[in-house]
Amino acid sequence: MEKDLPDIQAILPKVNFKLTRVGVTNVTKQIVVKRPDRNVILQPTINLYVDLPSTKKGADMSRNVEIIEEIVENSIKTPCSSIEDLGENIVKMMSKRHPYATRMEVEIFSDYFLDRKNPSGKVTQERYRIFSKVVMENKKIRKMIGVTSTGISVCPCAMETVRAHLKERYPEYSDFLDRIPVPSHNQRNNLTILIEIPEGNSVEINDLIEIAEKSYSNSTYEILKRKDEMELVLKAHENPKFVEDVVREALKLIYDRYRDFPDDTIITVKSESEESIHKHNAFAERICTLKEIKEEENNSGEHDKKNKYNRECCT
Amino acid sequence: MEKDLPDIQAILPKVNFKLTRVGVTNVTKQIVVKRPDRNVILQPTINLYVDLPSTKKGADMSRNVEIIEEIVENSIKTPCSSIEDLGENIVKMMSKRHPYATRMEVEIFSDYFLDRKNPSGKVTQERYRIFSKVVMENKKIRKMIGVTSTGISVCPCAMETVRAHLKERYPEYSDFLDRIPVPSHNQRNNLTILIEIPEGNSVEINDLIEIAEKSYSNSTYEILKRKDEMELVLKAHENPKFVEDVVREALKLIYDRYRDFPDDTIITVKSESEESIHKHNAFAERICTLKEIKEEENNSGEHDKKNKYNRECCT
Amino acid sequence: MEKDLPDIQAILPKVNFKLTRVGVTNVTKQIVVKRPDRNVILQPTINLYVDLPSTKKGADMSRNVEIIEEIVENSIKTPCSSIEDLGENIVKMMSKRHPYATRMEVEIFSDYFLDRKNPSGKVTQERYRIFSKVVMENKKIRKMIGVTSTGISVCPCAMETVRAHLKERYPEYSDFLDRIPVPSHNQRNNLTILIEIPEGNSVEINDLIEIAEKSYSNSTYEILKRKDEMELVLKAHENPKFVEDVVREALKLIYDRYRDFPDDTIITVKSESEESIHKHNAFAERICTLKEIKEEENNSGEHDKKNKYNRECCT
Amino acid sequence: MEKDLPDIQAILPKVNFKLTRVGVTNVTKQIVVKRPDRNVILQPTINLYVDLPSTKKGADMSRNVEIIEEIVENSIKTPCSSIEDLGENIVKMMSKRHPYATRMEVEIFSDYFLDRKNPSGKVTQERYRIFSKVVMENKKIRKMIGVTSTGISVCPCAMETVRAHLKERYPEYSDFLDRIPVPSHNQRNNLTILIEIPEGNSVEINDLIEIAEKSYSNSTYEILKRKDEMELVLKAHENPKFVEDVVREALKLIYDRYRDFPDDTIITVKSESEESIHKHNAFAERICTLKEIKEEENNSGEHDKKNKYNRECCT
Repeated sequence: MEKDLPDIQAILPKVNFKLTRVGVTNVTKQIVVKRPDRNVILQPTINLYVDLPSTKKGADMSRNVEIIEEIVENSIKTPCSSIEDLGENIVKMMSKRHPYATRMEVEIFSDYFLDRKNPSGKVTQERYRIFSKVVMENKKIRKMIGVTSTGISVCPCAMETVRAHLKERYPEYSDFLDRIPVPSHNQRNNLTILIEIPEGNSVEINDLIEIAEKSYSNSTYEILKRKDEMELVLKAHENPKFVEDVVREALKLIYDRYRDFPDDTIITVKSESEESIHKHNAFAERICTLKEIKEEENNSGEHDKKNKYNRECCT
Repeated sequence: MEKDLPDIQAILPKVNFKLTRVGVTNVTKQIVVKRPDRNVILQPTINLYVDLPSTKKGADMSRNVEIIEEIVENSIKTPCSSIEDLGENIVKMMSKRHPYATRMEVEIFSDYFLDRKNPSGKVTQERYRIFSKVVMENKKIRKMIGVTSTGISVCPCAMETVRAHLKERYPEYSDFLDRIPVPSHNQRNNLTILIEIPEGNSVEINDLIEIAEKSYSNSTYEILKRKDEMELVLKAHENPKFVEDVVREALKLIYDRYRDFPDDTIITVKSESEESIHKHNAFAERICTLKEIKEEENNSGEHDKKNKYNRECCT
Repeated sequence: MEKDLPDIQAILPKVNFKLTRVGVTNVTKQIVVKRPDRNVILQPTINLYVDLPSTKKGADMSRNVEIIEEIVENSIKTPCSSIEDLGENIVKMMSKRHPYATRMEVEIFSDYFLDRKNPSGKVTQERYRIFSKVVMENKKIRKMIGVTSTGISVCPCAMETVRAHLKERYPEYSDFLDRIPVPSHNQRNNLTILIEIPEGNSVEINDLIEIAEKSYSNSTYEILKRKDEMELVLKAHENPKFVEDVVREALKLIYDRYRDFPDDTIITVKSESEESIHKHNAFAERICTLKEIKEEENNSGEHDKKNKYNRECCT
Repeated sequence: MEKDLPDIQAILPKVNFKLTRVGVTNVTKQIVVKRPDRNVILQPTINLYVDLPSTKKGADMSRNVEIIEEIVENSIKTPCSSIEDLGENIVKMMSKRHPYATRMEVEIFSDYFLDRKNPSGKVTQERYRIFSKVVMENKKIRKMIGVTSTGISVCPCAMETVRAHLKERYPEYSDFLDRIPVPSHNQRNNLTILIEIPEGNSVEINDLIEIAEKSYSNSTYEILKRKDEMELVLKAHENPKFVEDVVREALKLIYDRYRDFPDDTIITVKSESEESIHKHNAFAERICTLKEIKEEENNSGEHDKKNKYNRECCT
C-alpha cells in the first residue's frame, strides 16, 4: 500500500535550490550507553540532517526517526560505548537510507550524571550536560565531543580592591591582610569544553569533566555540610579567577592532556559567569586549533609571572 | 457574511461540563503606560480567561484578542496609569463581550526598566519583571500587583564557619577577625513580592521594587567601576542573609509600608537563591494575610535578639 | 568537627516571621523506579520544602539533599514503584530530619518514555512529562499525580466554515461535502491531567496517559510512514475538537475511570493549543472535585445532543 | 580614587593564551530606534565581545556596559535608525575604549512589533524577533541583519495521500476531489532569514518580514473572525509547503530582491516546523553566498516543472 501512495518528497521542487541541512530536530529518546564501568541510561535530544539536491522536493524525514528508534531498541542488547559512537552509528545508517545525500550530520545533547566526592569524601551524584556532533562527508567521518559543567568563580579584582580598602582602614593589620583571603563576589560559572576527536584517537568524557572541574575557582557539590562548605569557600577564595582565567586554565589542561593530537584538532572553550553583582553575565571564549595553543604555550616563558597581585595561592 | 457562517462555539457540547477558565495565552503586545513622571512602553505578555457554562461548546476567543488590540490602539492617546489599571480595563471589557461568563481573569507579565543610582551615584537603567492579576467575579474586582527583582545574597553561615576557621588558625588575630567581613559564598537572589490591592487603595510598583532592593544583602547594578564593586561587595558582606532572611526582611518592610491595609490583604513573598556552591537553588516563601504578620510582629518582642552570631553589621 | 562550627541556622532570626515553605529547588537526579513490567530510569527534578517557625533563622537545607542522595542510592537495590511513592518516602524522611517542621512538601517532575503503537502497529517510544506533589501535614499524607502529553487538535469551527464555503461554491456537491472531512487548522495540543490519589487508592500513570491520548482529536507518534500519516490526519479530522472539547472529554474519561473515588477528590484538567493560525495559544481548564463533575454528568441528559454541527464522526 | 585601586585586569595572566571573544552577555535595555515612519521602542538583549591578547589578564568589562548606557541615554535625543546602525555605533565606541583589542563584535536580539492587515483588512499588531550581528576587524565593519517570524505550513504529502485515499473510496467524485483542497496536517512554522549588508547597501527589516510572510503556506494573525479564519485555512491549503519549500521560496524572494548585491553576500535561511502530528520538529536550512543561488537559479530552467502533484494552486 505504502508504495501506491503519492510520493511527494520525490518530485521536482517548484523552486530549484539545493539545501544545506534538512532533517528532524528535538527527537528525545531514552538510550542505554555502555560506559567503562557500567551501563548508563541517557535521555538525549537528537537532531539529524542531510543535504538535499535541487532536484528533490523533500527529504525522507521519517527514515531519520526510524534510525533512532532502531538504535534505541538495539541499545538494550548491544549498547554504544559513548554518545560520539552513537553519533557515528547514526550517520552511517543515514548514509545508507538517504542515497541522494552527500553529507550527514547528527547533534546529540544529554544530561549526564557522575558520582563525585565532596570535600569530606562523601559521594554525591552531580549533573553535567554532554553533547556530540558527528558529520559524514565524502565517506569521511568527523566527531566532536563536549561538556558543559557548572562550578564557582571568585573575582580576583574585587578581592584585591577589598583588600586594599581594608589595609587602608586597618594599616596596623596590613601584613596579616595580605596573608588571608578577603571577601569578593563569587557565582556560578558555566564552562563548556568542545574538542574534535581525531581519527584513531579517543576522548573520554569523564576526562573533559575533570579538566572543567580543575578550571574554576572550585568545583561545586549537591551535598555540603557546614565544614565542607567552609573548606570549599576558602579554597575558592584562594584561587580567584576571571572568566578569562577559567578559559585559559582549561586550555592549559587540554593542551597537557591532548598535546599529541594532530595540529589541526579544533578546540573550543567558553566560560559564562552569572555575576552575582550584575544582572548580566561575563563571558570568555577561545576557538582555535591545537597548533595555535601549542605555539602560544611555547612562547609563554617570556612572560614575567611574578606579579604582586598574582595571589592565586595567597594564604 | 460573518453571521451566515456556522457558529460552532454557540452549540451544545457533546460532553456537558462547565469549564473554570477558557481563553487565550501568550498574547504579546507593545503598550504605552502613563507613569507618574513619564510615559513608558511595556511589552507585556497577557493571558485572558472567562468561565464557560456547560451549555456552550466554545468561548469566543477572538473577542479577547480584539479587546487587547483596542487597548493597544487607545493606549497611545489615553494610556493606562499602571499594569493593574490595564488589567482592570481589560476585565471590564471582557465582562461586556462575554455575556455568558460569570468570572473574568487577566494575567499580565512585563519587563520593566527603572533608572537607579549605583554606589558612586551614576545612573544605570536596571531591569525588573512586573506582573498583575485582576479577577472580576459577581461585579467585584480584585487586583494583585507584583515584582521579581534580582539582588545579591551573602551566606551568613559560611561566613561564620570561615571566620571560626581563620580564628582557630590565627588565634593572635582573633579580635581583629571578629571586626572584619570574611569570605563567604554569594550569588544572585531572585525576590518576588506580590500584594493584593484593596479597594480604594493603591500600590506603587516602584515602592515594591524599593522594598525588594532593601531586602537582599545588597542590590546589584549593571554598571560598577572598581570602587563601586568594592563598596558593593563590602556592604553585602556586612549584611549576610539566608533566603529566609531575605523573605523576612521583605515582610517587615511590607508590613511597615502597608500596615493600614485591611487585615485580609493577601501577601506573597518568595526568594530563590542561585547558590554559587551548589547546582541547585535555595528557596523560601511566605504566603499570608496582613493580619498574620501583624500578629507575629507584635509577638516578636519576646525574642532575644542579642545573639553572638547576629553579625549583620559586623564591621 | 562539624558540631564545633557555628550553627547559624539554629539562632533566632532578627525579624521574627514564620515561613510557609523553605527548601531546595531544581535538584536533578537519576533514579530507578520499579514499574509493573520493568524497571525504568527517571531523571526527575525535585523541589523539597518544610515550614519554618518564627524562632529559627534557617532551615537545614543540606538534609533535604542528603535524603534525595540516600534515595538515589537505595533506588538501585530497592526501587520505588512510582514517583508518587518516591514522594511519599521523601516526605516521611523529611519529617524525621526536620523535627521543627509541621508541614513537608515535595514536588517531582520527570520525562517519562512509553512504547506506543503507531497506526500501522509499529512500536515507537513516545515522550511524556509526569509529575507528583506529596504533602505531609499533621501526620496525614496527601498525594497528587499528573501528566502532560502532546496530541493533535483539529478546529471544528474552521472545518464547518470551510465546508459551508465549499458547499456554497460547489452546490452540486453539497451532499458529498457533508460526508467528507474538509480542511481545517490543526496543531499541537498539550493536555495536563492532575488527580489526587485518595488514601487506600492508587492511580496508574499509564492510565492517565491513555485518557489523555483519547481526549485529543488524535494522539501523535514519532514514526509515521505515509500511510500512517494519512490515517492519522483523516481520523483527527473526523474528530475535530476545541481546547474546551479536549478538557471536557478528559473529564468524562476521568469520571468513567475514577467515579468510585471519594467525592472530595480534586481533579485538574487543562489543555493548551499552539494555534497554527495565531502566534498566541488557546487555553481551557477545569479545577474541581469529583463531586462536581458527578453532579454535572447526571444533569447532562437534559441537553439536546443532536445538533447539525456535531460532526465529531462525520464520515 | 579609582586609579589608586589595584587594576587586576591589566596584569599578566598566569596562563598565557589569547582569547577570541571576551565580554558581557545578556545586557537588556530599552532603546529608542527611529524607523522611517515613527520612533519605536525596542528592548534588545545585547552581547558585546572583544578579543584579548595573551598579555592581559582581563578585559575591561564595565566599559562595554557603559557604552550601552550612553547609547540608551542618547537614543532619546538622537535615536539610531535601525538595530544594525545601533550595532555599528557600538563597535565603533568599543574600538576606542578597548585599545588592546583587534576585533569588536556585538550581537543584538529584540522583539519587534508591526501593524499588519488580516484577511478582512483589520489592523493587528504582530510580533517578530529581529537580530543583528556587527563585527569590526582591521577597521572594516561587517553587518548582518535578520528576522525570525512565525507562519503556518500545510504538509503537501499528507494532502495528496489523503486525496488519493478519498478518491479510492469515492471513485465517482474523483474529478471533484482533484479540484478542492482536502485535509492535511498544518502547524506553526518558524522561518529565519539572515543576510549580510554589503558596504554601501542597506536592508530594510520590514522587507525581510514581507519575504518571510510570503514564504509560508500563509502568514498568521492575532485577530481572525470566523470568515478570516476560513479564508486563511483555505489559502494555506491551496499553498501546501514542506519546510524545504518554505526555505526555497524565501531564497527565491531574497534573490529577486537583492540580486544586485555583491556575489559574496552571505545568506542564511532556515525553517523549523512544529509538526502537529509528531512531538519532534522538521527542519530545513540553506547557508550560501548570493553567487551560489544565482548560479542555481540560472540552471533551474532545465527542470520540468509540470508535475502531477504540483498542486500549489489546486482549487
